[in-house]
Amino acid sequence: MTNTLDSLDPSPLPTGLHADRAQETRWVVQAVKPVEYEVRMVAGLLDPASSDLATAGTTERTGDRRFVVVDAHVHELYGDRIRAYLDRHGLTGRLCVLPAGEEAKTMESVLRVVRGIDEFGISRRHDPVIAIGGGVLLDIVGFAASMYRRSTPYVRVPTTLIGLVDAGVGVKTGINFDAGKNRLGTYAAPAVSLLDRTFLTTLDRRHLSNGLAEILKIALVKDARLFALLESHAEELIETSFQGRFDQDPVATEVLERAIHGMLEELQPNLWESRLERLVDYGHTFSPTLEMDALPALLHGEAVNIDMALTTVIGRRRGLVTDAEQERALRVMRRLELPLSHPVCTGDRLERALADTVRHRDGLQRLPLPVGIGDACFANDVTARELHDAAMELADLEPTHAR
Amino acid sequence: MTNTLDSLDPSPLPTGLHADRAQETRWVVQAVKPVEYEVRMVAGLLDPASSDLATAGTTERTGDRRFVVVDAHVHELYGDRIRAYLDRHGLTGRLCVLPAGEEAKTMESVLRVVRGIDEFGISRRHDPVIAIGGGVLLDIVGFAASMYRRSTPYVRVPTTLIGLVDAGVGVKTGINFDAGKNRLGTYAAPAVSLLDRTFLTTLDRRHLSNGLAEILKIALVKDARLFALLESHAEELIETSFQGRFDQDPVATEVLERAIHGMLEELQPNLWESRLERLVDYGHTFSPTLEMDALPALLHGEAVNIDMALTTVIGRRRGLVTDAEQERALRVMRRLELPLSHPVCTGDRLERALADTVRHRDGLQRLPLPVGIGDACFANDVTARELHDAAMELADLEPTHAR
Repeated sequence: MTNTLDSLDPSPLPTGLHADRAQETRWVVQAVKPVEYEVRMVAGLLDPASSDLATAGTTERTGDRRFVVVDAHVHELYGDRIRAYLDRHGLTGRLCVLPAGEEAKTMESVLRVVRGIDEFGISRRHDPVIAIGGGVLLDIVGFAASMYRRSTPYVRVPTTLIGLVDAGVGVKTGINFDAGKNRLGTYAAPAVSLLDRTFLTTLDRRHLSNGLAEILKIALVKDARLFALLESHAEELIETSFQGRFDQDPVATEVLERAIHGMLEELQPNLWESRLERLVDYGHTFSPTLEMDALPALLHGEAVNIDMALTTVIGRRRGLVTDAEQERALRVMRRLELPLSHPVCTGDRLERALADTVRHRDGLQRLPLPVGIGDACFANDVTARELHDAAMELADLEPTHAR
Repeated sequence: MTNTLDSLDPSPLPTGLHADRAQETRWVVQAVKPVEYEVRMVAGLLDPASSDLATAGTTERTGDRRFVVVDAHVHELYGDRIRAYLDRHGLTGRLCVLPAGEEAKTMESVLRVVRGIDEFGISRRHDPVIAIGGGVLLDIVGFAASMYRRSTPYVRVPTTLIGLVDAGVGVKTGINFDAGKNRLGTYAAPAVSLLDRTFLTTLDRRHLSNGLAEILKIALVKDARLFALLESHAEELIETSFQGRFDQDPVATEVLERAIHGMLEELQPNLWESRLERLVDYGHTFSPTLEMDALPALLHGEAVNIDMALTTVIGRRRGLVTDAEQERALRVMRRLELPLSHPVCTGDRLERALADTVRHRDGLQRLPLPVGIGDACFANDVTARELHDAAMELADLEPTHAR
């Protein structure tokens, strides 16, 4: 059964070539680029009996060559199984192993992937590049694929929880450049994104928490039911690593599906970010600077959580969030083992972070602030004073910053 | 008066988010990206009285900052005038000067532009980056703009003839990588492309010929009238550097307009090259390898011309082109001061070049061959023998390879 959740938009966009030879000759070129990709929850992706990975992103003309990029962690844990899988399916694979972690998110890594693709040799329209790894790896490979011969199909296989609910399902690619987080990148949809939660069994608690931050983000700004699920099952979700099948673990399944669905609902109508008021930017106003300045101390989701804690406090001080709601939100954050603050989170740095984000958001703050739990609004008038006060309040709440 | 040359395509493309929770949960994300850009012939672009450049690519929220990228040649010839122009229009400009020539078409150049933009600071949605230079520069800056913060508007101002009729009017960006020509790049439409033929006054004969090769390409594959104009005015076009206004130099005007119009007619319905049978790829099957291997001996248009001479001979040997038509085509090439061959143009290298192009064209040659003059077809069965024979025949026709 297929539910169409958003209606089709039937309005035709103009296409064509128009020439005007009045005073001066001019032409107007109009075209539309259709984009379609699939996000699919699968099980046992590396099980030799499954054909999901072997057929992912293929066409009737795909050959038997697969360029697979993994990070060092994934290689250590799954390298042999990936090789065995490719063998079993009669595929000639080449594994390209990149260093893991945010610090590897550089142009050098992108060029390493590109050089690898070029040396290996693939059909640029039909042999998908396969990226298996965390959000950082998916961003790097997506960027490389989008620029190789001006775009090559690729498949996203997130292996982390944050990848499963965030980087793995969207179309953004990117790397850090100089001190700027994701300063360079493209919008490039994968052919398909395969989400296999069994990868989460090898994730440590901290990285589960890291992903839960992005799930909590969706809950806080648009899904009170998802928040309630996190509130009633926080410890259990971490303990069980989201395992269990559809019918056996309805909570983990519902949490993942709601988080992904909520994310895609926000992304689909705004895939190229023509609107800069984005609910999914909640927690992403101050966190890019915090994450880069604390590198490698804070994981992405941890920095996002500090940003969310901060804006929850700002929201409460503005009367958008009650004392009780703030208490509930911060309590779930703690139970998800996420930090509320960090020594880099000073008022001055927050001011600088906001200034950079304002530049990124085209001159306005467009700062998502929580309204109660499960709703949000956008503010453009948050003051330096508010940042300092909220940072101080949070530092007092979490005096040790210990992890 | 506006002529709509291609009709609007009214068929709606599917957009939306569809979720399916049958066996396994899957989502399909569909969206369309509208693209529109303008190509405009202007006069006196750097004349302080003209506002064309100052307003190019602006919105109601554009500020007074302009990041302008030029190559060393342009800087030497026009740097002072560009600065004076910006001053006169109250704009705070930053000129970024890149080395000229195909050898500068590297990722280092792209990153230099990106770093410059980042340090200068612009509104990423409203302050257009301005690229003034030849095709190489436009390709580099377009690539940089397309990746900076996942895309920043930019303006193309070609200063060479080849830029005016080719790189300046399309949406392709790119750089060379390892030995691969344009191995990395994106499709990124400029906000607007401003074509000012007065830049051609500072072009030497060789670079006029270089651009005439791309004009000849359009003539040979789709515009017999354009070929006739080149045939009757070859020397005059070079001598006069395409100068003269609309009413004063109808031939130069018509040649430029037909070449650009023909190019845009081919590009518009296939902006992202979903179809790989492209008439505008005529002359671009063997030339990428020839150009890269002869670097810096052959200009792009010169390599393209050798490719066209070669495929004209192949076409004649196949009976697609008569002896007389081949004679006319090669004669115009010579009168346009373009080479018909070069020592790098050996049968073995042509075989290798074709193999690389077949990879680029997704497993098939899709080789445009001329049919008479002003028409073309696509071949997928050109043999190594044909390449060797045609190369030999051309080398005999042009024994010295002297320029």
